Amino acid sequence: MTLALDAAAQDLLFREARTANTFTDEPVSDEQVQAIYDLVKYAPTSMNQQPLRVVLVRSPEARQRLVQHLGDGNKAKTAAAPLVAILAADNEFHEELPALFPHFPQAKDAFFSERPAREASAAFNGALQVGYFIIGVRAAGLAAGPMTGYDAEGINKEFFGDGEHSVLAVVNIGKPGEDAWYPRSPRLEYDEVVTTV
Amino acid sequence: MTLALDAAAQDLLFREARTANTFTDEPVSDEQVQAIYDLVKYAPTSMNQQPLRVVLVRSPEARQRLVQHLGDGNKAKTAAAPLVAILAADNEFHEELPALFPHFPQAKDAFFSERPAREASAAFNGALQVGYFIIGVRAAGLAAGPMTGYDAEGINKEFFGDGEHSVLAVVNIGKPGEDAWYPRSPRLEYDEVVTTV
Repeated sequence: MTLALDAAAQDLLFREARTANTFTDEPVSDEQVQAIYDLVKYAPTSMNQQPLRVVLVRSPEARQRLVQHLGDGNKAKTAAAPLVAILAADNEFHEELPALFPHFPQAKDAFFSERPAREASAAFNGALQVGYFIIGVRAAGLAAGPMTGYDAEGINKEFFGDGEHSVLAVVNIGKPGEDAWYPRSPRLEYDEVVTTV
Repeated sequence: MTLALDAAAQDLLFREARTANTFTDEPVSDEQVQAIYDLVKYAPTSMNQQPLRVVLVRSPEARQRLVQHLGDGNKAKTAAAPLVAILAADNEFHEELPALFPHFPQAKDAFFSERPAREASAAFNGALQVGYFIIGVRAAGLAAGPMTGYDAEGINKEFFGDGEHSVLAVVNIGKPGEDAWYPRSPRLEYDEVVTTV
């Protein structure tokens, strides 16, 4: 056995987990989201930056405001999902950095005084955290339906009026419903991805 | 119990796992890397793009070529790690897309005919896959030491002469050694990250 992770956990997180397009009516509670966050928050980011911010879209009015900015193929399933989360990068994450990276408090000014540097770092580390979050949803026994087909500028203006956040993904969350997924598309083989020098 | 993932797996992947700065001499085999890849390859990317490419830096000569491009604080630990992997995005991933996303073969030309669009998508989805890869290293019972402190342009030129790849992270891999990590830095609380609308 080459992996330390038990086979059931491998299946839950990776092998049997699938991107869901339909869900049952079972609600997703704040307690479940908190359990997901309190697990995946420990995964690493550069200099412990943690730029990910999450907006849970619960009210019917907010759901409608979100759906209008989605690509047509994403509208109906997002309107019907038990819970929808907007995952965004906080481009002003550096304000928390002296508290989050206390052994090098100069990092805030040394690396992140310019907005383009902050945006690039927030985009990369925020995307890492999107990956962790998707794994966390699966760890909760739920299915994630992550999407990137939307008008990003529209979502940023609609939900982050401060101009300081950039949407990274919108994720439907719930128990998978009927015909929840397509047949799995092929994955690249090890030899197509990994080389040795 | 709010999470479906068992507590030992939670600890292995998130709570007890830490970014390692020192390692034992125990080698990391190709079989271990293949087991990691063959687990995390199933995690999702937009349109199944899978832009991540991995270079295992095994020869002493290649290790030296890499180390010269790292920030000073990353040099010694990378020179001494059992295995070092360069994780990069393939900005020409769209060439595989008709095979990887067979139910919409037009996606290649509809979305990715322009290099900037490809680069942005490769950067985001590659970062997702870096996150999955780090979790996979931990699933193998190994510690990851991911780094972003380096001359990216120098690494791109040194290891990807085709101009088509962008380094995303360099990751040291092995069994943690003595004093492998610093005390854990603080994480943002749920209420600092998650809001509801």
